[in-house]
This record gives sequence, structure tokens and C-alpha cells, in this order.
Amino acid sequence: MQNIWRQQFPLINQSTDLVYFDSAATTQKPQIVLETLQHFYQAQNVNVHRGSYPLAVSTTTEFESARKTMAKFINAPDERCIVFTKGTTDAINLVATCLARQSSINGKNIVVTELEHHANFVPWQQLAKQHQCELRVTPLNDVGVLDLSGLQQIIDHNTLIVAMGHVSNALGNINPVKKVIAEAKNVGALSLVDGAQAVGHFRVDVTELDCDFYTFSAHKMFGPTGIGVLYGKFHLLESLPPYQLGGEMIEHVSLEDTSFELPPLKFEAGTPNIEGVLGMAKAAQWLSHELTDSFQQYEQHLYHYLLDKFSVIEGIKVWGDLHSSVPILSFSIKDVSAQDVALILGEQGIAVRVGHHCAMPLMQRLGISGTIRVSLAIYNTIQEIDQLILALQSAIQLLKKDVNSGVVSKSQLQNVGGKSAHSQDRVLFNAISQAKGWDAKYRQLMLAGKKHQGMADEDKTADTRVSGCESNVWLKTEVKGEQLTISADSESKIIRGLLALICEVLNQQSVEYINVFDLAGYLTEAGLERHLSPSRTSGLNSVFNAIKQRCN
Amino acid sequence: MQNIWRQQFPLINQSTDLVYFDSAATTQKPQIVLETLQHFYQAQNVNVHRGSYPLAVSTTTEFESARKTMAKFINAPDERCIVFTKGTTDAINLVATCLARQSSINGKNIVVTELEHHANFVPWQQLAKQHQCELRVTPLNDVGVLDLSGLQQIIDHNTLIVAMGHVSNALGNINPVKKVIAEAKNVGALSLVDGAQAVGHFRVDVTELDCDFYTFSAHKMFGPTGIGVLYGKFHLLESLPPYQLGGEMIEHVSLEDTSFELPPLKFEAGTPNIEGVLGMAKAAQWLSHELTDSFQQYEQHLYHYLLDKFSVIEGIKVWGDLHSSVPILSFSIKDVSAQDVALILGEQGIAVRVGHHCAMPLMQRLGISGTIRVSLAIYNTIQEIDQLILALQSAIQLLKKDVNSGVVSKSQLQNVGGKSAHSQDRVLFNAISQAKGWDAKYRQLMLAGKKHQGMADEDKTADTRVSGCESNVWLKTEVKGEQLTISADSESKIIRGLLALICEVLNQQSVEYINVFDLAGYLTEAGLERHLSPSRTSGLNSVFNAIKQRCN
Repeated sequence: MQNIWRQQFPLINQSTDLVYFDSAATTQKPQIVLETLQHFYQAQNVNVHRGSYPLAVSTTTEFESARKTMAKFINAPDERCIVFTKGTTDAINLVATCLARQSSINGKNIVVTELEHHANFVPWQQLAKQHQCELRVTPLNDVGVLDLSGLQQIIDHNTLIVAMGHVSNALGNINPVKKVIAEAKNVGALSLVDGAQAVGHFRVDVTELDCDFYTFSAHKMFGPTGIGVLYGKFHLLESLPPYQLGGEMIEHVSLEDTSFELPPLKFEAGTPNIEGVLGMAKAAQWLSHELTDSFQQYEQHLYHYLLDKFSVIEGIKVWGDLHSSVPILSFSIKDVSAQDVALILGEQGIAVRVGHHCAMPLMQRLGISGTIRVSLAIYNTIQEIDQLILALQSAIQLLKKDVNSGVVSKSQLQNVGGKSAHSQDRVLFNAISQAKGWDAKYRQLMLAGKKHQGMADEDKTADTRVSGCESNVWLKTEVKGEQLTISADSESKIIRGLLALICEVLNQQSVEYINVFDLAGYLTEAGLERHLSPSRTSGLNSVFNAIKQRCN
Repeated sequence: MQNIWRQQFPLINQSTDLVYFDSAATTQKPQIVLETLQHFYQAQNVNVHRGSYPLAVSTTTEFESARKTMAKFINAPDERCIVFTKGTTDAINLVATCLARQSSINGKNIVVTELEHHANFVPWQQLAKQHQCELRVTPLNDVGVLDLSGLQQIIDHNTLIVAMGHVSNALGNINPVKKVIAEAKNVGALSLVDGAQAVGHFRVDVTELDCDFYTFSAHKMFGPTGIGVLYGKFHLLESLPPYQLGGEMIEHVSLEDTSFELPPLKFEAGTPNIEGVLGMAKAAQWLSHELTDSFQQYEQHLYHYLLDKFSVIEGIKVWGDLHSSVPILSFSIKDVSAQDVALILGEQGIAVRVGHHCAMPLMQRLGISGTIRVSLAIYNTIQEIDQLILALQSAIQLLKKDVNSGVVSKSQLQNVGGKSAHSQDRVLFNAISQAKGWDAKYRQLMLAGKKHQGMADEDKTADTRVSGCESNVWLKTEVKGEQLTISADSESKIIRGLLALICEVLNQQSVEYINVFDLAGYLTEAGLERHLSPSRTSGLNSVFNAIKQRCN
């Protein structure tokens, strides 16, 4: 199947060394959206809603017409049901906050699912905590698919609202939201659907769904960042008190009190993200036009091709609902750290996401710390999937095989843990800094990690776990006399290697030495700073800070 | 003095028929900021903070380096004090909400000023209302300058926070914030400064001011819309509970509870406005570089030139502090409606703002419904001011003079109020629709307004006032038999004309006729839709809806 969409995306089309499989985090933008943003600043930029001069009139008209476009995009009955927000998170916080402001919700229950993104979980969890509500969590089966068998017991006459994702950002599952909405309606409960991962893949019809609230973000549907939509039934928006207070949303202000505008303006305090609104509307128009049967067939073609390829790689476990899914594929590999895989893929220009995907309760349920997520969009190709498969196979090989070759000899490695204040003693450091290219460096890191002494399993506890690291990292220190002994371990081979590198330079050193040690400089000298993500660097900083704390 | 900045602003530089004097609403953007936005989408677009692939690493690094740029821009001690928000309104709502969540504030007092923008007034007013606090309002003198003589009585040991604008958006006054912050500090109260109108005109140093919180929006300092900064002292940000909840701002989530990140991430739930942050940082860099003595001298040169020109126009009253002001000039004209002036200037391509400028308490204090605001920025010129003065003089002449000439004869005008169901009887409609160009149309409208019967002063009460109109509009209706009699009036001559036009077609009509009447179509037929701002059209809709309501 030919990809007729790819060439419309400048970033994708122009880069020769990027395979972008992180569209669930944010999609790339078509040229037509970029042009809309530029045109706004070059020819239309004024503030909206207040000016009476012609440019203010025409830009305000276009801004309000964008609201109509967004209403049409999800088949809302009316543009007055469309509130512009910063994005999905802002929209869900708005609803949660305003529901509690509207009337007492004490003693009610709030229903979410174990599959939710934190944005549709934490606001409800904390709301429940603050107002003595019960948080009820719809469970999952062992692969991460919603188990609705007990739904009629979970949702009852005391339910305030049922909040759930239309599509799981972590696994790709398309959830049976219509059934759940109907169940909520049956008992007079409200319903909110987080559609952030839905609107970019299939047509959404809020009138047909009959949900009370629906939310999504522009940047996940080919539009700009910093803007999104809260759809709400008008009478509900009307009955809610305002969220933020300020200009644009007031009717009258005196020293004593304030009266407010009708929705949607009531919920849009301050100057809106005007370029964002126009860019989002353009993306919605583009998507409405493109989202034909062949668009969806193409996406499903990519998805099933990837699934087929995965089925023959040993040790891969794919999570989630494989029968009803957008082209998002989340997997683990037996005995291989997801972090290590993603890092090695990244160095080959393949952008996948690794970790908990802002869905920690889901990961806890699956009994894993994270997955590798390949999230596809309409601009991806079969060739790119082939590239991924090749790179993945060699990464697995690299990570699984018994690393015995390399610049560092076995006898040298026995020095690990010994005193190493002088640079000639830094065998790991020397091997890593001299290695050329990311693959040689990683090989050295893994070699170092393999030989690293680590910690006994019984010492890897919540007490020794260092917070602030993406992977699990454990640390034990002991000060004897003036010298510090460090033990450290991680589930990731590459992190183990980094820990070995830190141990080499800090073990058996004085507290004084450790206090003045420059970690960033050390990593730069080793030629690693370019190869470490900010979150990994900040993880290493957490380890280093923990070492310092324990010896001071 | 030569303007060396203007050519950097594409919208200003390219348009031949726009004199942009509405920079206090939003500034135009230099080319370098536009390029930053385009470059982001063409070469850098990924989500930040989570990815470990190289593009995610480099974009995250640039995003966090933008935070350092913003810290430097206002001389904050540390980038951890910089929280990215939607803008000033978002930032102030964040502080107000979190202060009340942090601990009980019942019985405290909150100090604001009578000069504030609604964004720095309504959140505090409503917070005070909800938590039984006293709202104390620092008063103004008769021209709109803060009267600080009673400050030591207003701020006391029971004051929670003092919130004030650095620069008045409505009048341009630069307020003595340092003195007020010191006073607050003296009694242990917090201080928040709304710097939205300050940062685009002079260097701000939060360390020297020693305020606890400082807020501003990018779009008022040559950056994009939808993004701004909350500066807070780190220990205060640390002690506040989070605001919105979701991804990016959590440390750990379980089914039972959630722990949060440190500031600033604690306050940045969800995908940030990445392009906005990068665009804002570029604008800050540009401004830091340009904001020299000659920048400020140039702005003051424009301001004083305008002030001098105004001093010789009869009937102009300039409000605010003329000795300590950014180049914002707010004025009224005796016996002339500000709305009418702004509309006529707008038709000549001169963009000024008219109304309450989101500062209704200030307008109530000055005893006016609004002002005309000319807000200048670095790209404006003396030639543009000359254009304004010429246009203003002719507008005043037009609005003040006894309009006796025109297409409509006196005898025809006596028909106003009579039955006019047939188009041949619509003399006003015919005159207005046949008039060519905005000036002829406005002349006809004013002529119609002048001859319009209007209402007796004693009938213009709060009861007859129609809500939802920018100007004051009063309406009385009476149903006799099947027919409706309408009286309507306004302080604006142009609105009076529009009311006359509506009366002509609806007066003495049946309720049935009024129910099916198409107002929008009628205005379009009269050739007026292009000349009426959305807020004016919506004002007319409010009048029409009020008529319908009263006869049904």
C-alpha cells in the first residue's frame, strides 16, 4: 500500500535518519498546519473578543469559526459545547475541580479504570481523597484488557461520574466506552471520556456516544502543543461554576462581586492560545478530509504487519487488546531491560518510548516496571517497520549474549571496586572513553555492568531503592574511617555499567573527595553526555546525591 | 529618532493600511520568533521529559534551557523558580488556588488595588468570598493613580497576600511595587506582582524587587500566545500543594495514592506548550538584547509626542499617571462616545482599544464606562501618531457636528416609528444600504440616531438596561393587541442609529413577525455586517432577544 500522506509532513519527510514511532506522545504536523501558524503571526495577529477594528473583527470571527470546526469534528450539537483548554489534562482537571465546587460530593463514588493515563486517574483519586469519596477502579485481565464483567456492581446509584479513556495510551486498546456510558446513564451518573489517543485514528461522534464530557489534545491529532478541547453537554457546562477567573469570562465586576459569561467563555479566562486554536482547527479540517476508509486500512495494515513480525521474535510479549486497537504496540522482552533496548534503538535513529507511559497503576497490574511502546501514525511505512525489526533483533542479540570480547581484559576488570583515584587505575573509564561510537561505548558499558559486583537480591529492597531513577536502582553505602564503600545495582545492563563507572571512581574514596567530585564533567570526559537522556542523567544525579547524603 | 526595530516585525512591516496601537492587548512578533516556531515543527517536534532517543534528548535539553533563559530574563536566582503557565491569568489562579489548598486562610485579609486587571482582581475577590477573608482594595485618586497614603492601615499582620500590577494595562501607570512589597514583607505578608504589562517595556529584576511571586505572559512581550511564566521563590513553590494533576508532575502513582515531583514540574501537569516555551525564550533573548537605553528613550519619545499632540485637542481628558508610565495612553473625549470614535478610527486602519480594558472597578472609580486606549510598542512611529491625530480630529468633528445633510430628508425621518413592513417604507434601511463606504454608512447611522426618538432620561434605569451590550443600551416594549411598540436608546450615536434601524423594521409589527425576523440577514442586506465588530453584533442580538422575550 502506498503512503500518500507522508510527504505532507516536513519533519518526517526531510530527515533521513529518524524513524518516528512515538506518535502517541505527540504526532508530527502537516505542512498546512505550519502554514496556518505562520500566517497567523504574519497577517492576523491581534487579540480576540474585544477589539472593534477590522483586523480584530476578522481574527475574532476566524477564532470563533474554529470553535464551529471543532464542534463539527466530533459531531457536537453546538459550538457552545466546545471549551478551549491547554489540553486533555487541563480539561479533566477543570471538570473534576468544578464538580466539587458545584455541590457537595462527599460520600459519592467515582469510577475510573486501571488502564488510565495519570491525567485521567490522579485528578479523580485526589478528588476522592479530599471529599471522602470512594474511588472505584474497573479492573483489567492479565494482559491489560478491561474486565467489565462486574461493571453493574461497580457503577451504582451513588456514582458521581465514570471517567475512562477511549483508547489506552500505553497499550492501544480501543475501550467499549459506549457500553460504559450507557451503564452510567442508566443510574444517573455522569460520564467523561479521555479521547486524547482516539481522535487521531478514527472518527469520534460525541452525540452518538452520548457522553457528558469528552476531552482531547491538538498535539496528538496533528495540531500544535498547548491547546485542546473540552466538550461538554451545554446544560452541564451551564450548571458548573467557573474554573479560572480573569478577563474574557466575566459579565460584570464591581468591588463587591462578579457575574460570569455563559459557556464556553465562562471557562476561558485570559487571552486564549489563539495560534493554537487556529492551528488545531486546521489540523481537524485536514484530518476530517483525510480520515477515509483507506486511512484506517493503511494504519491497520502497518499494525498487523508489525504484529506478524513480532510473533516470530523469541521472548517478545505484546500487551493489550490485539483485536481492537489503534496502531500502538506495547511489549516486553524476556530477560532484557526495556530501557536498554530503547537506548540502543534510539542511537540508530528509531524513536520509541520506554517506561510506564504515565500509567503506573497499569504497570503494577501487569507486574512490570514498563514496556517498550511503538506508536504508529499515518506517515509511517512498512520500510520503517522493517528497520525497527532489524535493529531490535541486533539489540536483543547484543543485550542477551555473553559479552566477553572488548578492550577491557578480565584481569583488568578485577580491579573494579579497588582504589582508583589515579586515572591510570580507571580501567572502565579508559575503555569507555576510548570506545568510538555509540555501539562500542554501549558494549563497554554492558561489559562493565556484567562484571560489576552488584548487590545480593535480598539487599534490593524498598529501603535501598533510589528514588528519581527511571529504572530500578539500589544503593548501599558504608563509611569506614574516612573511606566510603559503595554497592549499587540495577535491572538495566547499561545502568549497571554506569554504576560500575561511578563505583570505580568513588569507591574507597574520602568523603571530602566525594563532596567535590564533578559528575557531569566526568561523564563528559568519558564521552557519554551525548548518549544519555536527560532523565537518565538526572537518574545518575539522584544516585550521586544519595551517595553524598549518606556519607555526610 | 530612527526606528531600527520596525522592520523585524513582518505583520507591521508588510501591511500598508494598519496602524497598530493595541500592543497592550498583544504585541506583534519579530521574525526571529516566527522562525523559532517554524523550526520547532520542522526539525525538533517531539514531546519532552520522557523520551530517551536523541531527538527527545536534544529537544528536552532546549526546553529546559528555555527555563534558564526565562530565569535570567527577570534575574531569578534559579531556573527551578520558573513555572511555565498558560499565561498571567493561569499563574495568578494557580497561586490563589494553591494558597487556599495549603492551609486555612479563613479570617485573613487579601490586599489588591482598584487599578487591577480582572485577572488580578476576580481570583482574589472570589477567594476572599469563599474563605471568609476580607478583600481590601487600595484606593485611587480621581485620575486613576494609586493613593498609598493609607497603605500601613490596609496591610497588617493579618494580611495573607498583597497582589498588584506592576503596570496598569488600562492606564499605563508604573506602580511603586517595590515600596508595597517592602510593606508586605514588614508584616510577614506574601506579595504577588502581575508584570504582564511591564516586561515588554523595561527590565524587571525579581531579586531586587524581592517579591514572592511575579507573573507575565509571552504574547505581551513579543512572544507567542498561550504561554507565560509564574516566578515564585523556591521554598514557597516547594511548600505549595500541586495545582493541576496528571502526567509529568508525579513521582509515583499507586491505586491508593500519589507522590509529586519537586517544583517546577510539580506545577506543570500534562504535555507543555513546547513551541510556546521555545518561542517565549527566543522573544526574551531578543528583548534582553534590544532593551537598551535607546529602546526606552524611543518609547518615551513616542509617548510624549502623543501626549503633546493630545494637549491641544479640545475636550480630551487623559487618565492615569503621566509622569511614570509606559507608552500606554488612555483617554476620553467630552460629549463623544468612545465606542463611536474607535469604530471610526478602525475603519481608517487605526487599531485602538475601547472599553473597560478588563478593569471595571477602575472605570467605576473614574465614573466612566470606558476609555479609548492607545498602546504603543517599539515598532510604532511618529508618522503613525500623526495619522492617529488627523483621524481623531476628523472623527471628533464628525461625531460632534450637527448632522443635517444626508440622503434621508427630515420629512422622511418623521416616518420613524411608523408601520414599515414594506420595503418601500424602510427609509433608514434604504439610506444606509445605499450609502457607499464606511464613512457614508456611519454618517447615515448617526443621522438616523440623531433623529431617533430615544427614551426619556428617567426611563434609562437598571431595569430597562439590556445586558450583554458593550455600551449602555436601554429598551422598553409594550404589546397592544397584536402589535409591539418599542423604545430604545444608547449613549453611542452609532448604536442609536442601529437601534433606529431595528425599530424601523420591528415597531408596530406583530409578535409573529418578530419571532421569524432574521436580524443577521437584515444587517447583511444593509451592508453593515462587515462594519460591525462581533461584540457589537452580539450586542444587537441581545437587544433583539430581549425584544422577543418581552413579547412572548
